[in-house]
Amino acid sequence: MVAVAPQVALRVGIVGLGRLGQRHAAALAHNTPGCRLVAACSPVEAERAYAANQLGIANVYADLDSLLADPAVDAVVLVTPTSLHADQTIAALKAGKHVFVEKPLALNVPDCERVLQVAAQYPDRVAMVGFVRRFDPSYLAAYQSVAAGEIGKPFLVRSQTCDQNDPEGFFVKFAPTSGGIFMDCSVHDIDLARWMLGRPKALRAFATGTIALHPGLADCGDVDNGIAVVEFEGSAKAVLYASRTMAHGHETSTEVIGTAGKLLVGEHAAANRVVKSDQHGVRHAVLKDFYERFEAAFAAEMAAFVAACRGITPLTLTLSDALEATRIGLAISRSLASGLPEAV
Amino acid sequence: MVAVAPQVALRVGIVGLGRLGQRHAAALAHNTPGCRLVAACSPVEAERAYAANQLGIANVYADLDSLLADPAVDAVVLVTPTSLHADQTIAALKAGKHVFVEKPLALNVPDCERVLQVAAQYPDRVAMVGFVRRFDPSYLAAYQSVAAGEIGKPFLVRSQTCDQNDPEGFFVKFAPTSGGIFMDCSVHDIDLARWMLGRPKALRAFATGTIALHPGLADCGDVDNGIAVVEFEGSAKAVLYASRTMAHGHETSTEVIGTAGKLLVGEHAAANRVVKSDQHGVRHAVLKDFYERFEAAFAAEMAAFVAACRGITPLTLTLSDALEATRIGLAISRSLASGLPEAV
Amino acid sequence: MVAVAPQVALRVGIVGLGRLGQRHAAALAHNTPGCRLVAACSPVEAERAYAANQLGIANVYADLDSLLADPAVDAVVLVTPTSLHADQTIAALKAGKHVFVEKPLALNVPDCERVLQVAAQYPDRVAMVGFVRRFDPSYLAAYQSVAAGEIGKPFLVRSQTCDQNDPEGFFVKFAPTSGGIFMDCSVHDIDLARWMLGRPKALRAFATGTIALHPGLADCGDVDNGIAVVEFEGSAKAVLYASRTMAHGHETSTEVIGTAGKLLVGEHAAANRVVKSDQHGVRHAVLKDFYERFEAAFAAEMAAFVAACRGITPLTLTLSDALEATRIGLAISRSLASGLPEAV
Amino acid sequence: MVAVAPQVALRVGIVGLGRLGQRHAAALAHNTPGCRLVAACSPVEAERAYAANQLGIANVYADLDSLLADPAVDAVVLVTPTSLHADQTIAALKAGKHVFVEKPLALNVPDCERVLQVAAQYPDRVAMVGFVRRFDPSYLAAYQSVAAGEIGKPFLVRSQTCDQNDPEGFFVKFAPTSGGIFMDCSVHDIDLARWMLGRPKALRAFATGTIALHPGLADCGDVDNGIAVVEFEGSAKAVLYASRTMAHGHETSTEVIGTAGKLLVGEHAAANRVVKSDQHGVRHAVLKDFYERFEAAFAAEMAAFVAACRGITPLTLTLSDALEATRIGLAISRSLASGLPEAV
Repeated sequence: MVAVAPQVALRVGIVGLGRLGQRHAAALAHNTPGCRLVAACSPVEAERAYAANQLGIANVYADLDSLLADPAVDAVVLVTPTSLHADQTIAALKAGKHVFVEKPLALNVPDCERVLQVAAQYPDRVAMVGFVRRFDPSYLAAYQSVAAGEIGKPFLVRSQTCDQNDPEGFFVKFAPTSGGIFMDCSVHDIDLARWMLGRPKALRAFATGTIALHPGLADCGDVDNGIAVVEFEGSAKAVLYASRTMAHGHETSTEVIGTAGKLLVGEHAAANRVVKSDQHGVRHAVLKDFYERFEAAFAAEMAAFVAACRGITPLTLTLSDALEATRIGLAISRSLASGLPEAV
Repeated sequence: MVAVAPQVALRVGIVGLGRLGQRHAAALAHNTPGCRLVAACSPVEAERAYAANQLGIANVYADLDSLLADPAVDAVVLVTPTSLHADQTIAALKAGKHVFVEKPLALNVPDCERVLQVAAQYPDRVAMVGFVRRFDPSYLAAYQSVAAGEIGKPFLVRSQTCDQNDPEGFFVKFAPTSGGIFMDCSVHDIDLARWMLGRPKALRAFATGTIALHPGLADCGDVDNGIAVVEFEGSAKAVLYASRTMAHGHETSTEVIGTAGKLLVGEHAAANRVVKSDQHGVRHAVLKDFYERFEAAFAAEMAAFVAACRGITPLTLTLSDALEATRIGLAISRSLASGLPEAV
Repeated sequence: MVAVAPQVALRVGIVGLGRLGQRHAAALAHNTPGCRLVAACSPVEAERAYAANQLGIANVYADLDSLLADPAVDAVVLVTPTSLHADQTIAALKAGKHVFVEKPLALNVPDCERVLQVAAQYPDRVAMVGFVRRFDPSYLAAYQSVAAGEIGKPFLVRSQTCDQNDPEGFFVKFAPTSGGIFMDCSVHDIDLARWMLGRPKALRAFATGTIALHPGLADCGDVDNGIAVVEFEGSAKAVLYASRTMAHGHETSTEVIGTAGKLLVGEHAAANRVVKSDQHGVRHAVLKDFYERFEAAFAAEMAAFVAACRGITPLTLTLSDALEATRIGLAISRSLASGLPEAV
Repeated sequence: MVAVAPQVALRVGIVGLGRLGQRHAAALAHNTPGCRLVAACSPVEAERAYAANQLGIANVYADLDSLLADPAVDAVVLVTPTSLHADQTIAALKAGKHVFVEKPLALNVPDCERVLQVAAQYPDRVAMVGFVRRFDPSYLAAYQSVAAGEIGKPFLVRSQTCDQNDPEGFFVKFAPTSGGIFMDCSVHDIDLARWMLGRPKALRAFATGTIALHPGLADCGDVDNGIAVVEFEGSAKAVLYASRTMAHGHETSTEVIGTAGKLLVGEHAAANRVVKSDQHGVRHAVLKDFYERFEAAFAAEMAAFVAACRGITPLTLTLSDALEATRIGLAISRSLASGLPEAV
C-alpha cells in the first residue's frame, strides 16, 4: 500500500460519535481541506443515524472491524473510550489505515508500548494522538517564541486544566474508569510541559489533592482538585494543577518561565473581546468548556492529521510523546495514592 | 423565479479576486455550509487563473455580464471597486441573482437609492452589503447584551477603525477614489453606531482631522487621522476615530455607553492569548490588519448570506442600513471640508 | 519680603474646609514634608471647629482678611467656591502670601487675566492652580514618555472625566454655578491635553452633549454627558468626554497618540490589584471617586506647592496654563450652547 | 508601666538603618500619624550620621542596650539581621518597650518559641513581626472578600515571590545566612496562605528547585527558583513559588481558590496605570522591587504598629503566626534538601 498522493482527498472514517466525536466529524465534513468524511462507526444506533442523516455519510458501520475492512477508507479517527484506544489503534494500523486517536493513548505503559511497536512496523502510516493544545494558535505562538529563544532557556512550566464546576457532578460516575483527574485532565499539561521544555526525560513526580465539592470521588481515590510537581532531567520542573470545580468557567492556562522572560498562555479565559463595566465592576465573560476554548485547535488538529496522511506536512507530535505523557501521568497518580514522590 | 430550496446548495459566483475577494472565495469554497462556489469573474487574467487553478472553478469569466448570464449561478458576491458597486448590484438583481456587495454600497446617496429601488422590485432576492463587523462574535455578543437591556438605554457610541501605519503609504494612491478616510474606514463604525443605538435618524455631523505622517493626502483633501461627531434624533451621539498611522497594529474598537453600564469591544487588539513578560514589560502581540481581526466574521458573514439566500435565516442588516451609513459618511466628509457641522 | 529659606518649614493656612479642603488639610498636616499647617479659615462654624479640634490648629479665622493679616502664615491654600478664586488669589498675593488655588482659576477670562497681572507684580510669590492630575504618578510617567519622544510626535489626545452616577443627582443643584460640565470636569482634560501636546495654541472648539439621567440640568443649559473636540495650531486635536452618569465608578482616562505609538492612562479604573473570577465573570472593583483615584496625586501636589514656595523645586505648571484651560473650556461651553464651532 | 495614652504620640526608636531600615525610618518620621521618631541605633557610623543629619534625630546610639535604656523611647523598630531578631526582641520586651521586628522572627523554632514565652510575660507590650503584605490594600481587600465568604470555602492558595534578576548576583553572598530562598522569600507567602485559609495547621511540605542563573548558590544548597507544596489539616493546600531570576521585574502574586470563586492579587505587577502601544506590542512597565510594590503597605504597617502600641487598634497578626511561618518554612527547606515530603 502506498501513501495517498497529495492531490487526492483523504477518505476518512470516524469511529465514535459522542459529543467530541461529533465535533471531529463536523470539522472533517465541513472544515478540513483535503479530506472527505466517507464512513462512520458506532455501536450506538442514534449515533449511526446522526452519521447517516446529519452528516450524509453513506457507509455507516456498527463495529470497527467492518469499517476497517472498507477499502474506501484511508484513515480513521478514533473518538472512543480510553480503554479501547490501544487495541483499536493497533487494529487500524494492521488494516493499513492512518490513525488519529484521542488522548490519552492508554492508561498504562505496556499498552502504549504495544502501540508503538506495531506503529514501527507501519512507518508509512500516520499514527497521531490528540494533544489538541499543540494546535491552538496561542500555544503554537508560545512554542515558536520559546523555540526561537525569546525567553532564554525555559526551566519551569506551570500549567493548569480547570473545568467549570458541574453541580450535578456528572463526571463522578466516570471517575472509576477515567484514570483519575491527572490522567484525564493533566495529561494535556504534561505534554505541553515536555513540548515547551524540549522533551526532557522526567525523573520523579509528587502529587497531592483535595476534594472540594464532590465527595463521591473518594470511593475511587480521586480528587476534584489536584496538584502535581514533575522533576525532569537537567533540573527543569513542571507544576500542574487540575480542577473540576471552578466557579467562573473553563480556564486552561500555561506559563513557561525561562532565563530571559516568561510566557503565559490562556489566562483569564475571556470568552470574547467584550469588556463590560457595570455595577459588578469591569469584567469579561468566561469560556464555558474546552470545546469553546479549543474550537479552532480541534479544526487545526484535524487539518494537521489530514495533511500528514497526505504526505504534505510531517507531524512533530509522536506516539513516543503520548507514551511519555502516560508514563508521567501514571507516576503522578501513584504519588497521589502513596503520598510520596514516585519515580517516573 | 423561485427561492432556492433550503436543502439545495446555493451556487455562488465570485466577482473580483483581489486580496479581499480571494478571502471571500476561499471561505465560500472551503468553509461555508450550504453553498458551492461555481463561477468567478475578473478582468484580470492572473485572477482568473487563480480561480481556475487554485479554487478549481470551471466557469471563469472576464466580464460580469457573462457571469450574470450563467443560469448555474444563484448568487453573486461582488468584491469590486466601490465605484462599480451600485451598478453591478442592480445588474445582478435584474439578472435574478442574490447579491452580496462589499461596503460601502456607493459613495453618493442617489446611487444607493437606485439600488434600493431596484431591490424593492425583487423582494425574493437577497441583497446584502458587507458590514462584516456585525458578524464578529464579540460585536454580536455586545449587540445582544445591549438589546437585552443589560446596559440600560444606550446613548453614546465611541468607535474607531485604526490601521497599522504602512510606511510605504501605499494607500495614498487610492485616496482620490476611496471617498476619503471616513467613507473608507468609518463607514463600519457608523453602521455599528446605528445598530447599537437602535437605528436612530442622524441629524448632524462634525469632523476634523490631521495629517500625521502622509502629506500626499493633502492633494485630495484627505487626512490620515480623522475625528467625527454624529448627533442623532433623540439625543444619542457617536464619536468616531479613523487612523491610518497606528504604530502597533490594527485596532478596531467600539464602546457603547448606556444608562446602566457600558461595553467595550475589541480594545488592545490582542493577536492571541499569549502574554509575554520580559525586559520590554508585560505585553501582548497585536493584530496586524482587519483580515486577521475579522477572519471569523468574514466566514460568518458569508454563511449568513448563504443562509439568507437559501431562505433559512433572514437578514437583519438591510440595504437601508447601507444607505444611511453612506448618507452619514458623506455628511462627515462634507464637514471635514467645510469645517462646520453639516446636516445629514 | 524674602523667600522662605529652604530649611525652614513653610507655614500654611488652609482656606475652606469642605470635603476637598479637609483632604488638603490632612495632607498638609500629616503627609507633606517641609510645612506646618498653622492656620485655617472658614465662614462655617463646624469647619472651624474641625480645624481646631481635629487638626489642632491654633489660629482659626472666620474671614480671609484676618488670615491674610496673620504674619505667621507664609502660604495659603484656597479650597473655596470657584466664584471666589480670582479675588482671593489676588488678595493673598497682595498680602505677600504664596497661593495655591483649586481649579478652575475662574469661570471667565478677564478674571484669570487679572490674577496673572497681579501675580506678575509678585514674582517671588508662588501662585499655583490645582491641576492635580499632573502630579499623579501615572500621568507623570506618561508625560515623561511623551517628552522623551517615545511615541514620536503626539498629535491627538483623547481624554475623559467620568463620574459614577449619583442617583440622588446631588450635583444638579450646583449646576447653575459650576460653569457647566466642561468647566467643572473637562478643564482637567484640557490641561492634560495642552501639557501632553506641548502647549499648542487652541484655535477652535466644538461640543455637543446629552442628558441621559438628570433632566434637571436642562434648566441651566447643562448636560450630564458632554463631548468636545478642540483644534490646535499645528493640527493637533483633542477629543474630550465628560460624564456624570457612569454605572461602574469613577473612570478618568487619557490617551496620547503619536506618530510612533500611543499611551493610555487610567483606563478601567481598577480600585486595586485584585482580580475576582466567579459567576459574574473575571472582574475587578472600580474606583469610586476622584479622591480615591488621585489620593497620591493630591499629596504630591501639596508637596510640589510647598517645595516651590520653599525655593527647592520650581513649578512647571503656570497661571498661564490655567488661563488657557479656562479660555478653551469657555469656548467649548459656548459651542455646546450655539451648536457651532467656536473660536477659542 | 502603663499603656501609652491614646492622645499621646508614641516615641519610637529605630534599630538598623540599612536600606529597609531607612524606609521604615522615613515612614515613621514623615508619614505615620501618632508617633515621633526620637531615637536611632546602628553600629555603622554612616547610618548614625544619616539618623542625625537626614532625619534630625537627637538620640543616636551605637548599641541596642543604650537605646533600650533610654526612658524617652516607648517602642523600637528592629530592622536588623535575622540572626539577631529573637534576642533583640526579647531584650526590648524586657526593657518594657513595644517591639516591631522584621520578618522572619527567627530561622529556627526554638528561638521563635523563646520570644513567644517572653512576650507572654509582657501582655501589655505589643510585639509584631513585619509581614508587610497583610497591610497592602489589595491583599487586605482580598482577605476581606475571603472572610466575607465571597469565594465560598477557600481550599487552595497559590502564591509567589519573584524578584527581578540581579545580573551581579549580589544576593548570592548572603545565601549562607539567609536561611535559603524559602525562608527569605516564601515566608511571606506562607503567612498569606495561612491567613487566607483561616490559619489551618500545616502537616507536611514538599519542595524542589533549580538553579537557573546563579551556580554559586549550589555551595550552600540553595536554589534561585524554588517550588513548594504545603498540606494543611482539613485538606487545604498551598503551592508556593520563589524566584530570584525574573527578567521583567518584581512580581509578587497570590491566588486564593474557593468553592465559589477565586481571587488573584498582584499579578502582572504593573508599575502604574499606563499602557503603551507601540512596535513592541501593547504593554505596561513592571514594578522593580518589593519596596516599590509595597510602599503603601510599609507605611500602613508602621501605622498599624503605632496604633496598636497606643491602644487604639489591636493587631490580628500574632507572634504565633510568625512562629508557624518559620516552622513551615523550615519543613519546606528540609524537603528541598531531602527530596522527600517532610512533616511540619
